[in-house]
Amino acid sequence: MSKEGVLTPQGEDFPRWYQDVLAKAELADNGPVRGTMVIRPYGYSLWERIQREIDDRIKACGAQNAYFPLFIPESYLSREAEHVEGFSPELAVVTHAGGSELAEPIVVRPTSETVFGEYMAKWIQSYRDLPLLLNQWANVVRWELRPRLFLRTSEFLWQEGHTAHVSQEDANAYAQRIHLEVYNDFLVEVMALPTYLGIKTKGERFAGAVNTMTCEGMMKDGKALQMATSHELGQNFAKAFEIKYLGDDSVEHYCYTTSWGASTRLVGGLIMGHGDDNGLVIPPRLAAIHAVALCIKDDPKVVAAATAIASELGGQGIHVEIDTKSGSLGRRITDWELKGVPVRIEIGPRDLENGTVTIVRRDTNEKEDVGVGAAATRVAALLDEIQTGLFAGALARRDENTTDVASIEDAIEVAQSGFARIEWSAVGEAGEAELNKAAVSVRCLQRADGSLPLSDDEADLVCIIARAY
Amino acid sequence: MSKEGVLTPQGEDFPRWYQDVLAKAELADNGPVRGTMVIRPYGYSLWERIQREIDDRIKACGAQNAYFPLFIPESYLSREAEHVEGFSPELAVVTHAGGSELAEPIVVRPTSETVFGEYMAKWIQSYRDLPLLLNQWANVVRWELRPRLFLRTSEFLWQEGHTAHVSQEDANAYAQRIHLEVYNDFLVEVMALPTYLGIKTKGERFAGAVNTMTCEGMMKDGKALQMATSHELGQNFAKAFEIKYLGDDSVEHYCYTTSWGASTRLVGGLIMGHGDDNGLVIPPRLAAIHAVALCIKDDPKVVAAATAIASELGGQGIHVEIDTKSGSLGRRITDWELKGVPVRIEIGPRDLENGTVTIVRRDTNEKEDVGVGAAATRVAALLDEIQTGLFAGALARRDENTTDVASIEDAIEVAQSGFARIEWSAVGEAGEAELNKAAVSVRCLQRADGSLPLSDDEADLVCIIARAY
Repeated sequence: MSKEGVLTPQGEDFPRWYQDVLAKAELADNGPVRGTMVIRPYGYSLWERIQREIDDRIKACGAQNAYFPLFIPESYLSREAEHVEGFSPELAVVTHAGGSELAEPIVVRPTSETVFGEYMAKWIQSYRDLPLLLNQWANVVRWELRPRLFLRTSEFLWQEGHTAHVSQEDANAYAQRIHLEVYNDFLVEVMALPTYLGIKTKGERFAGAVNTMTCEGMMKDGKALQMATSHELGQNFAKAFEIKYLGDDSVEHYCYTTSWGASTRLVGGLIMGHGDDNGLVIPPRLAAIHAVALCIKDDPKVVAAATAIASELGGQGIHVEIDTKSGSLGRRITDWELKGVPVRIEIGPRDLENGTVTIVRRDTNEKEDVGVGAAATRVAALLDEIQTGLFAGALARRDENTTDVASIEDAIEVAQSGFARIEWSAVGEAGEAELNKAAVSVRCLQRADGSLPLSDDEADLVCIIARAY
Repeated sequence: MSKEGVLTPQGEDFPRWYQDVLAKAELADNGPVRGTMVIRPYGYSLWERIQREIDDRIKACGAQNAYFPLFIPESYLSREAEHVEGFSPELAVVTHAGGSELAEPIVVRPTSETVFGEYMAKWIQSYRDLPLLLNQWANVVRWELRPRLFLRTSEFLWQEGHTAHVSQEDANAYAQRIHLEVYNDFLVEVMALPTYLGIKTKGERFAGAVNTMTCEGMMKDGKALQMATSHELGQNFAKAFEIKYLGDDSVEHYCYTTSWGASTRLVGGLIMGHGDDNGLVIPPRLAAIHAVALCIKDDPKVVAAATAIASELGGQGIHVEIDTKSGSLGRRITDWELKGVPVRIEIGPRDLENGTVTIVRRDTNEKEDVGVGAAATRVAALLDEIQTGLFAGALARRDENTTDVASIEDAIEVAQSGFARIEWSAVGEAGEAELNKAAVSVRCLQRADGSLPLSDDEADLVCIIARAY
């Protein structure tokens, strides 16, 4: 069967391929207000799986969920100078409510540092109340002039963690823990995407942070996607919002705070990090549907075999969808490929007579015939192989497409199709400005061994340079 | 130990008691913008449990989650005449974004019928696409002049289901299914709150609906709380948004749509439906913490016994929190009572020498001494007894406080402290207006046997009358 015309090939026009996948796999639509997004059920099911995995990890790190208001008094934002400067151009402002004009305009939260700060100051009395570890799942609004679904939308869904600590050391340790045990662990173990871990340069930091840690992923077109960030806010917000505690020395101290977030942008990372010319490729550990039992004919024996396999796998927590739809077989296969379901089990009356079914891997398209009785066991094993294979493939691709360079000129050249690595001392703030002019940026600073520096002042740092979403 | 001064007694001042519980059990605070709410971690953990239970039931009814934008063009709301009239006074309006004034003002969604309608019209082609069953978990904004935390706030969290069907019968059947299998099942089986099920009068219906089904609960002060509603929208939104399908008769037809929702108001219902003078009382099936193992001394043997019990119960999915805090025992007990944790296991060194622990029920305050080895088994059984007991108690209270009356005057009198039941023919629209003047309302219409009428035109209906939140 021909796949022509279903998706624009990645090699021909990657952005177009991305738009095609969004539409054909029924992931998302543009909303009616510029820059907003309608997340369709299949797209939302991916986000629900991402949420669950990240939420479990956040709770394992001891943070508790809470909910803070959508609306923030405009005056709150101004209290932290860099913060308001960073967000002002992106704010949506409510000026009228309940039929009249408001005395003070209200800002729709672009992020919630300020309102968390206000309440943390109320709740924290003494060192016994620390650390205070909070998180919320919410929508936020940052007006976008060049929106792209999942990657950059005027409204997006995310989690934002906000914590307060007694010391800089404790705040740094917790932000690192989130960076590694929540974000990187999720990305590597579940989403099967290798990352470059590092810190942002001063120019790329979050507005109001003293340090920003980032997980940078490589998409299939060689561009970088910032997957999640964790910020040390020093005492900036503590001083702006009077977040103080009485120490065991009976003296009042300002807290050290952190914030950290990951958003629906991760769905974009999933699409572009693993997808191919046939559509999505979902890593088994992230899939809501692990396998489809495709009944080639809607025949009682075929459906019975599909049901038996689905039920055996269901007992192991592996979700198999049974497809008994009518219509062209080629079209049905194309649809399941588009949706990226890891394994397809094709069950037809003729094969059943021989006691076999055909199992097809979504990632490699490899087919194998397996005895009906052994199918469930084989599918379960195959899901592990696919998970491992996807990560190994993405890692090899990332490493092949990362090139050590010695000059800014070469970095710009390399970044047209991949990542460049270069000593930070050869770049600096002036070099960074030059890169930015060429639409290329420093994604992160690392130590030479790839580990996380404590600050951008450390000697012998290297930087990863790329075009980015 | 004395509990004086912790909470205002319910009998003295119920609204004050409610405010005290919110503060002392650390459930919620007022937000910085009038009418908004900060949901604190313990309050949010209750909402998370409610969400999970309702979400599971929604999925079991075949609906899929999706996400639609927060921002709706103002023009959308005007397309359905009753809808815009109903919501106009409550809207929050964004007039500026991204640094400039917007050409068309944007409304912050008060509910999403209109935007779901717009996209359903795009996605539905033929009868094969129906029913289309969608749901979303989201925040909505309805400007409130007299806010009360969890009960009526300018922003609240909820789920809103939106479905499209081929016929009125199918839409009605699905709305009824949600009403019974999602909302009523959750309220009765998990929240242990009996309901009066019925339909709303024309005057109390959702703006744009042709029929609204409601679950009405009785709070401990005898007032009613509308816990969840399911609306049949007829073809009103289908006609406003051109939601049409090609039938198997090859003719285009308008769909019939429904919508249905339940919100953070349910947390208010939980507080006021079961709480007592010592604080919250959480039904075991809704509790995030099922029992607290209160170590009377932070002694290794005591902690070991607590850990053993917690671990045995943990294996059965029963979550036991171990409390080894220092500080006054009375204060610690008061705190756990405030939080409404169903069972307290008091473990002290002296009791342990005798091989026993003391188990205390939160709902009745009954204490029993149990052998250490039998404690876990007893706690598990007790949780079932408490769940059953809470429902039985609430049902008896509801029935005792519901009085059959024959006149509107008597209905108003009875409704000062409970619910009145009266034949609808003795009330009618004129009587309803009279009730409303006395701050009393028709909560729902039922058949004489308590079952759900199909419409308010049915003969021999009775109505439930009460003051309401």
